[in-house]
Order: sequence, then structure tokens, then C-alpha cells
Amino acid sequence: MDIASVAGMLIANIAILWAIYLGGSFSIFVDIPSIVLVIGGTGASTMMKWGMDDLKTLLTVYMKSFFNTMPNSKNMIDEVIKLSEIARRESVFALEKVPVEDKFLKKAVTLAADNRPPEVISSILGLEISALEERHGKGAEMLEAMAGDGPAYGMIGTLIGLVQMLQNMSDPSSIGPAMAVALLTTLYGALIMAVFTNPMAAKLKQFSKAEATKMNIIVAGILGIVAGENPRTIREKLESFLAPKDRTPTEEKKE
Amino acid sequence: MDIASVAGMLIANIAILWAIYLGGSFSIFVDIPSIVLVIGGTGASTMMKWGMDDLKTLLTVYMKSFFNTMPNSKNMIDEVIKLSEIARRESVFALEKVPVEDKFLKKAVTLAADNRPPEVISSILGLEISALEERHGKGAEMLEAMAGDGPAYGMIGTLIGLVQMLQNMSDPSSIGPAMAVALLTTLYGALIMAVFTNPMAAKLKQFSKAEATKMNIIVAGILGIVAGENPRTIREKLESFLAPKDRTPTEEKKE
Amino acid sequence: MDIASVAGMLIANIAILWAIYLGGSFSIFVDIPSIVLVIGGTGASTMMKWGMDDLKTLLTVYMKSFFNTMPNSKNMIDEVIKLSEIARRESVFALEKVPVEDKFLKKAVTLAADNRPPEVISSILGLEISALEERHGKGAEMLEAMAGDGPAYGMIGTLIGLVQMLQNMSDPSSIGPAMAVALLTTLYGALIMAVFTNPMAAKLKQFSKAEATKMNIIVAGILGIVAGENPRTIREKLESFLAPKDRTPTEEKKE
Amino acid sequence: MDIASVAGMLIANIAILWAIYLGGSFSIFVDIPSIVLVIGGTGASTMMKWGMDDLKTLLTVYMKSFFNTMPNSKNMIDEVIKLSEIARRESVFALEKVPVEDKFLKKAVTLAADNRPPEVISSILGLEISALEERHGKGAEMLEAMAGDGPAYGMIGTLIGLVQMLQNMSDPSSIGPAMAVALLTTLYGALIMAVFTNPMAAKLKQFSKAEATKMNIIVAGILGIVAGENPRTIREKLESFLAPKDRTPTEEKKE
Amino acid sequence: MDIASVAGMLIANIAILWAIYLGGSFSIFVDIPSIVLVIGGTGASTMMKWGMDDLKTLLTVYMKSFFNTMPNSKNMIDEVIKLSEIARRESVFALEKVPVEDKFLKKAVTLAADNRPPEVISSILGLEISALEERHGKGAEMLEAMAGDGPAYGMIGTLIGLVQMLQNMSDPSSIGPAMAVALLTTLYGALIMAVFTNPMAAKLKQFSKAEATKMNIIVAGILGIVAGENPRTIREKLESFLAPKDRTPTEEKKE
Repeated sequence: MDIASVAGMLIANIAILWAIYLGGSFSIFVDIPSIVLVIGGTGASTMMKWGMDDLKTLLTVYMKSFFNTMPNSKNMIDEVIKLSEIARRESVFALEKVPVEDKFLKKAVTLAADNRPPEVISSILGLEISALEERHGKGAEMLEAMAGDGPAYGMIGTLIGLVQMLQNMSDPSSIGPAMAVALLTTLYGALIMAVFTNPMAAKLKQFSKAEATKMNIIVAGILGIVAGENPRTIREKLESFLAPKDRTPTEEKKE
Repeated sequence: MDIASVAGMLIANIAILWAIYLGGSFSIFVDIPSIVLVIGGTGASTMMKWGMDDLKTLLTVYMKSFFNTMPNSKNMIDEVIKLSEIARRESVFALEKVPVEDKFLKKAVTLAADNRPPEVISSILGLEISALEERHGKGAEMLEAMAGDGPAYGMIGTLIGLVQMLQNMSDPSSIGPAMAVALLTTLYGALIMAVFTNPMAAKLKQFSKAEATKMNIIVAGILGIVAGENPRTIREKLESFLAPKDRTPTEEKKE
Repeated sequence: MDIASVAGMLIANIAILWAIYLGGSFSIFVDIPSIVLVIGGTGASTMMKWGMDDLKTLLTVYMKSFFNTMPNSKNMIDEVIKLSEIARRESVFALEKVPVEDKFLKKAVTLAADNRPPEVISSILGLEISALEERHGKGAEMLEAMAGDGPAYGMIGTLIGLVQMLQNMSDPSSIGPAMAVALLTTLYGALIMAVFTNPMAAKLKQFSKAEATKMNIIVAGILGIVAGENPRTIREKLESFLAPKDRTPTEEKKE
Repeated sequence: MDIASVAGMLIANIAILWAIYLGGSFSIFVDIPSIVLVIGGTGASTMMKWGMDDLKTLLTVYMKSFFNTMPNSKNMIDEVIKLSEIARRESVFALEKVPVEDKFLKKAVTLAADNRPPEVISSILGLEISALEERHGKGAEMLEAMAGDGPAYGMIGTLIGLVQMLQNMSDPSSIGPAMAVALLTTLYGALIMAVFTNPMAAKLKQFSKAEATKMNIIVAGILGIVAGENPRTIREKLESFLAPKDRTPTEEKKE
Repeated sequence: MDIASVAGMLIANIAILWAIYLGGSFSIFVDIPSIVLVIGGTGASTMMKWGMDDLKTLLTVYMKSFFNTMPNSKNMIDEVIKLSEIARRESVFALEKVPVEDKFLKKAVTLAADNRPPEVISSILGLEISALEERHGKGAEMLEAMAGDGPAYGMIGTLIGLVQMLQNMSDPSSIGPAMAVALLTTLYGALIMAVFTNPMAAKLKQFSKAEATKMNIIVAGILGIVAGENPRTIREKLESFLAPKDRTPTEEKKE
């Protein structure tokens, strides 16, 4: 779990709740029909836009964007290098017995141990990577659509409230509270956008990019192992995916 | 029919109508000249933007975006595999007698049974796919243009109402209701955008993508059948179009 | 003339004028300085953005976007097929005497009758197509720029009016009308955008696309004629540019 | 100098000043701190965004976008053709003595007279063209950034003014004027965007495109001259860069 | 340090503070809960969007965008030419002893002195360049995301303040100040966008472009040195990266 996401969500909510608390009552910020309109409307538009199958995966993808740790490419390189050393000492077939946690690496290792030709390994794993990107891409797209629908239904709610208030101004003392309620839907819409969907859409894109990099490292590593390259050459190749500061220092590699 | 679209439309309307109902009278939300201005204006701009031929197909495309079920690629693969097994057991010419519901698959099967060369099959079906994408693309474009015109005419109506109200403020009690009416066009415009066009445009794009995937599966399948490949190889090829969780488990394929 | 464009323009104007008429006087919507500011400003920005040569063609392009009929690719195919039949029966040189209305087709026929090599015909006509797309593209760009400048000058006018009103609030009864006048420029700007430029820009793009398709059909047809292909093959090739429903049914083509 | 740019600037200013004049005093539209805030802020953001070197060229580029005449490709073709006739009659080396006003044409002629190989001429002149596009592109980017910063600082100024006014409402008669002043920064920001930067950015792009076309004509012409092509062939080639109506009529070319 | 960035930041702040100072008290522009909401919220969204590793580099990148001098390609060319002259006079191996300040140039020189083959030098340095662009690109992306979140949380704060004010209008004299405080979050959000993030994001992009150009010059130069080209040829090649006015005049190069 990446602490940043959860901490960010907590901080955003505390900052907002504190601002509400200082101004007095919490209850003036809760209006059931407004909540139903904005959340119901945003959900309804999401249902209209996607088929049932995609909707079912939305929650999974949302949770994933929130709780999953960013993949660590550096550690993955170390793991691949360890496998390459085993393959060197014993043989590619010995890899199947090595315990491997990462599912994608496991699949890659199995393909290598099955003695499948490199182009088959590369194409099967490549399909997996593009399927993941497609899936995460659709998730980000759904969240971004919700980030647009929230404020739209917020505006619809505020307009409905304003029309009702303006048609009924006989009691001046009710104007203020009526307008306050009308503004709540706009506030809810803005919260949906800024706090509950946009950050997750952005995270999902970051995550998808990092995951694809990690998978590409695995593919390049397994192909190197299958080709019988020595571990040092493989490491040099794989580290090209890292930022300079994360690479093994050059001197160390030389000797 | 995909229940999600219809259910979404119902939920959106119920949420909005409930918010109106709780605030009192429905009638204050109905103003004929405002409706004429926003709907008439949005329709008029659509007429100015497209030729007569495109306008005629707009309704069809709208209904389609709403009621059509998302194509199920998984079932289509099963159907293609069944055909490939028949072609294996008997011959490609036997396919013509197999009852096939999907129009595009029917066309593909007919071309195969006619013994047309693969490149002809591929180019004829390819043209069909790009024609479908073009048609759906234009439909989505028209709906998106309407999603922009609705709020624009909404703003024009509100400005007209405000000018009329501001020029005529002798009776203070009429100011509120006059402004309420002026805001109605903005509300109508927002509804056109958020409820009645944007979701359909998004659905149409999803639908078009899924339909093209299904068609590409059919093309790849028929070409495999014509080339005399065995059903298992064809399935493996076609499942590359699916998300991993929808594929036949690897173990099963091995034996 | 495409009835849709003109009818659309009429409907938009009638809807707006009716909304004004129902609210009372027309005269409160006419303010000469506001008109001068918004139309003058939008025109001035257009002059600043383009050179004199482009400005001269703006009116032509505007009228074209408005009154020109969407080119009919289906009829053009029939005409090209008729020419191909004449070329078959008699010779390519006989085409020069056939009366041809479409200018571009005429040019293509002349090039063919001149016995120019196919690659020359193709490159000369290709240049013509890209020049048309460039011209229409620039026209659409100019109209879209005006659709942005209209509201911008509208806002400038409203801000000027508001500042003047706010500095001079001694007579409360004048505040309403002064604000009404201030809002007029925003209204004019919105009308320029939604009614008088955006639809034409969109139409021009549609038109340009359809015209280019028609021209590409002519090029493909003439090249087929020059290559001595038989009319049925040419038709099959040209109909690939059409939507399925507009194509000659397959059965008919078979015999 | 292209009259359109200067005339456009004059018309825009006259329309705005007339609207101010009709409403009374000019002085209510001048507020020194507001001017300092919006112009200072926009300038400051521009400084933060670009390095010192780019800032120095901003004024040059601005003036250029304003006063430079759109390059006339038609005249340039005539000039290149004249040179090609001289080269034909005498020799390529004779070109060096022909007086040539356009700097880029001069450079091209010098390269030709120096007997440099065509690929060298082409690559040297090509670098020049891309350097010009880069330079003009950066100029347009800077102006567009200013067109965004102007309204942003305008909004900041209005918010500051509103906060000050709202905190100090003891004297009701001062509210109007205070709000008028607060709105001035928004007006200034809108003027920076719509009148003083956006049009120049658009012009610069047009200009850059036209200049690049003219330069490409020169390159194609000089390469034709160096290859010893006859002037008629060169003209036919160069006119492919022009719109049909600007080309020499076909009949004329035939004889 | 590029004076433009720091000077711009100072000017922007002075202009804003002066506008506040002229209007009276500074203290009415400071509201701790509003500051906590906008800065806390923007920071929280940034945490939700990126993983811990990226967040750590944000401050470094921010400072860099602010204080780093735009790389000077012209000086770098002179330095590379000096190296090429040494390599000519003595040998490539002599380069290792030449003191070189620029880290990337140092690495390039070391690779050359190590006698690595040109394609290895080119690929190693190329990876470095794309890693830098990726890093700076992510930095600009983070700052742009903050430039969007600032105003979003600003609007959320203003809506919260308005709802609180509207629910509590019993004391008319408190309405103005309450609304003033409500507007502060919008002001803070606008300042975050226009002054504290957008300019740095733009600068980072400029900087990254200029840095990549400088690095490409170094790569081209080192490859020329390794290939044993003469310094004049190398200079001609490297100056193709500069604007015409920064190049060595042609005459000088001839002799």
C-alpha cells in the first residue's frame, strides 16, 4: 500500500472538515435530496456511458488506484538478475522451481522453462501488457468522465434550487438558507471532481505506466536469460529503464 | 438491450424529478418559450452543421446508442470456433448451411463459402469495419456538438430573460419569478448536455470500439478457417483480443 | 443548396426572436454602440489575425458553407461509370466530347483525353484536392477564431458597461436598464458564436470532407478508366467510399 | 506592412474607446494600481516562464507579427523564374551578379553560384527554414501564454478589490465605485487577451506558415535551376504551392 | 541562476502586495483555515496522484525550474570545439585529462577516452537524454496538476464559506466580511495557479528542451571527435542547432 494515497485522502478530508467545523454546524452541509441528485446523477451517467461489464470492474479499479503500491522497478531488476544467475549456474529449466511472487514474472519464468521460442514469449507477454494498459486506461477514462459529470449535476441541482427559491420569495428570511441549500449540489460536485475521482484517475495512469515499465523489464530480462546472456549484461540492459540515480554506479559494473 | 443505459436514464430522471418534487410545484419548471428556444436552437444548429443525409441517420444512431447491447466478444469467439470445427470435419463449403445470426459473421461466412481469396475477404470486411467506425464516429460527433449547443442556447435564453427583467423592474415582486424563468433555459441546456447527449456520445464510442473488436475477431477467425488452421490455434489467436480473465485457462488449452 | 442549413438558420432566428417578442419590446435588444463594439471588435481581431488576401476570401467561403449542397458521392459514381462505359465502347479520347458539369471531373477527363500518364494525372489532381482542403481548413479556422472573439468582446463590453453603471448609482431606477444594456454585448457575442460562426465552421469541415471524398472517387475512377478496367470493377472499387446502405446490392453485381 | 493588422488594431481600439466615451468619463477606466498589477503580473509570469534570451526577442517578434507583410508567394515565383531564365541564357554563375532583395533568396543564389552540390544547398536552406519556424513558434507560444496570464491576473486583482470592498461596507455610497475599480483588472486582462496578444499569436502562426511556403518555393526553384531544368517546368512545379486561382492558366502553359 | 525567473517572481509579488497595501490592511487577506484548506487540499491531491518516490523529487525539480540557468548551447559548442582541437593535436585519449565542468560532457569524454565504439556512446548518452526528459516532463506534469487543484480547492472553500454565510444572515453587518473571507480561498487558488506553479511548469519545459539540445550538441560533437573529423566540420555541424544570429558568420568559416 502506498502511504501517499491514503495520507492524501485523509489530509484532504481533514482540511475540508476543519473548515466546515470552524464555521459552525456540520448539519447545514448535509442535504439528502442534494446528495441523491449529485451522486445518483453522476452514477446514472456512468451507467449510460458504459456497459454492465465495465461497470462491474469500476470498483476494483478504484480500490486498486487507491491502495496498490507503485511497482518498484529497481527491486524487480534485482529479482530478475537473481534468476539469471540461477539459470547460468544450473539451467533455464531450474527456474520453474524458484519461488516467484510476482504473477507476471511467474508467467514469464514458466514460458522460459517450457522452452518456448523467444518470439512466442515476447508476443504472449506483450499481449498481457497491452491488455493491462487498455484495462487501466478504461478505468481512468471512467473516473475522468465522473469528474466531469459531478460538477454538471452539481450545476443542475443549484439551478433547480435557485428557480425554486426565486419563485418563492415571500418570506425574506428563508432566502438565505434556500440559496445555501441550492449551492450544496455545486459543492458536492466539486468534491466528487477534486477529491474523489480526479486524483484516482491520475494515479491510475501513473500506476499503469509504472506497471508497464516493470513488465517490460521482466520481458527484456527473461529474453536475456533465454538467450543465455551473462547477468552483468542483462543488468546493464535492464537499468536503462531506470533514472540515473537508481542505477548501479558505473565503476562497480566495470570490475 | 443493455440494462445499464436504460436504468441509468431512469435513475438520472428520477433523481432530478425527485429534487424538483421536494421543492414544490413541477409547473414552475416548465416554460414553453424557453423549451422552444433551447431545443429549437440546438436542433437548428445541428441542421446548420450537417447535411440532410446525416440528420436522417441521427435518430437511428441515438436509439442504437441507447438500446443496443454491447457486443459480446467472448460468445462470438465460441461461435467462430464452432464454425471452424464444422469446417474441419466437413469443409468450408458446409458453412453456408449453418444458421448464423450475426449479419457480419454471415457475410464473412458467405465470402468464405464462395471460395474468395483471403486478401479479398480481408479487404471487403475491412471496408465494412471502417465504414461502421466512420458512421458511429459521425454520430458521436453530432451528439457532442449538441452537448455544446444546448448550454450555448441556454445562456442566450438566460441573457434574453435577464435583459427583459432588468428593463422592467417597476414591480419588485415580479423580479424573482422573472429571474427564475430566465434561469430555466440554462437548466434545460445543462440537462441536454449532461443527461440527453453526452452519455449517448460516450456510449456510441464504447459501442463502436467493442463492435470493431468483435468484427476483427470475426475477420481473424474466418481467415484462420479459410487457411485450414485447427480450432485450438484459432481460439488462442482470437483470445488475444480478450482481457486475461475472459480467456480460456492455459492448462485447459495444453492437453 | 442544402435546405438544412438555411432552414436551420431560419429556425434558430425565429426561436430567438419569438423569445424576445414574448417578453415585450424588440427595441430593448438593440443598442448601437454595443453592436459596434462586438461586431467591430470581432472583425478587427479577424483583420489582425489574417492577411488581406485571406480576408477577401472569407465572405465567399462563408456563403459557400451556407448555400452549397453537400456533394453527392453516389451520383458522382454513376456519372464516372457512364464515362467508363463510353471509354470502353469508343476510346478514352471520346471522353473529351462528353458534356461534364463538375469542374473537377472535367479537368480529370481532359487530362485523361490528353493521354497524360497516370502518375501525372494522379499528382495534378492530388494537388488540387489538398489545395481545396487547405482553403476550406483556413476558412473553418477563421470562423472558429471569430466564434472565440465574439464572446471575448462581449465580455469586454459588459465589463465597460458594469464599470460605468457602478460609478453612477445615484439614481436607483437607472441601475436596472444600465445593467440590461451592459449584458447586451455578452448576448451579441453568444449569438455570434452559437448562431453565426460555429455552425458554419462545422459545416465547412463536413463539406470539405465530403468534397474530398467525391474528388478521390473521381481520381480513382479516372485512373481506372485510363487503365482500361471494366466498368463493373471500377464501380466495385468506387463504392468502397460509400456507406454500405448506399452501395449497389451484392447480388446485382454478381451476374 | 500589411494594412489589415494595423487597421484591425485601430478599429478595435476605436470601438472600445467609443463605447467608453458614450458612457461618460474616460478617467473612471484608468486605475494605476490595477494597471500595474495586471501588466506587471503578466510580464512577471512571462519572465518566470522564459529565459533572458527569449525575452529579448519578444519585442522584435511582436513588432514583426504586427507590421510585416504576409509574404507573397506568387511574386516570389516570378522572381525565381526570372533567375532561372538568366541561368539558362548565361549560366548559374551569372546569378551572383543579379540584384536580389529577399535575404533567403540571396543566400540560395549564393550557394548555387558557389557550385555547392544540391543536397548541401537543400540541407543548409532546410535548417534555416526549421530555425525560422522554431523562432516564430516560440514567439506565438509566449504571446499565447500572456493571453492566459492577463485574465488570470485580472481575476486576482478583482478578487483583491472585492475582498477589500466587502470588508469595508460602512459607507454604502462607496460600494459601487469600489466594485467598479475591482472590475477594472478583469477588463484589463480581457483586453490583453483579446486585443493585444491573441491576434498577434495567430498572425505569427499565419506568417510563419506563409514564410515557410515562400522559402520552400525558393528551395525548390534553386534546386530546379541547379539541375538545369527549363523555366516552364520549374514554374509548373513551383505553382503547385499556390491556390488554383493564383496559378498561371493551363492554356497559357501549353504553348 | 537565470535572473529572469527570480526577478519575475519578485515583480509578481510586489505588484500583488502593492495592490493589497493601497487598499488598506494586509491582515484581511490572511485567514489560516482558508490557507490550510487550499494549500492542504492541493498538497493532498498531489499526494493522491503520485507515489512517494515522485513526491520526494518534486521540491528538487521546483527549485531547479526556478534557479537553474538556461543552458547556453553556444558556449557548449566552443567547449566541444576546444576538445576536438586537443583530440586532433594529441589524441582522443588526451581528453580524459582535460578538466570539464559539465557532468554530461564529462561522461561523454570518458566514454570517448575509453575507446568505446560510437554506437555504444550514442546509445548510452541517448538513454541519459530521454531519462532527463522523462524526469522533467513528470515534474512539469505535477506542477500543472497543482495549477488545476489550487483553483478547485479554492472554489470548494468559497462554496463552504458561502453556505455558512447564507445560513447565518441574522446580523447584516457580518455578511460583507463573511463573504470577503469566503472569497479568500478562490484568491489563494488563483495565486497558486498563476504565480506559484504554472510559470515553473512552463519554465521546466523550456529548460528541458534547452538541456536536451545542449546534450544533443555534446553527443554530435563527441561522435565527430571520435570519427576524427576536423574541428571546422564539427563546428558547422553543431551550429545547425543554433538560431542563425548565434552562428559563426559564413565568411569567417570559408577561409
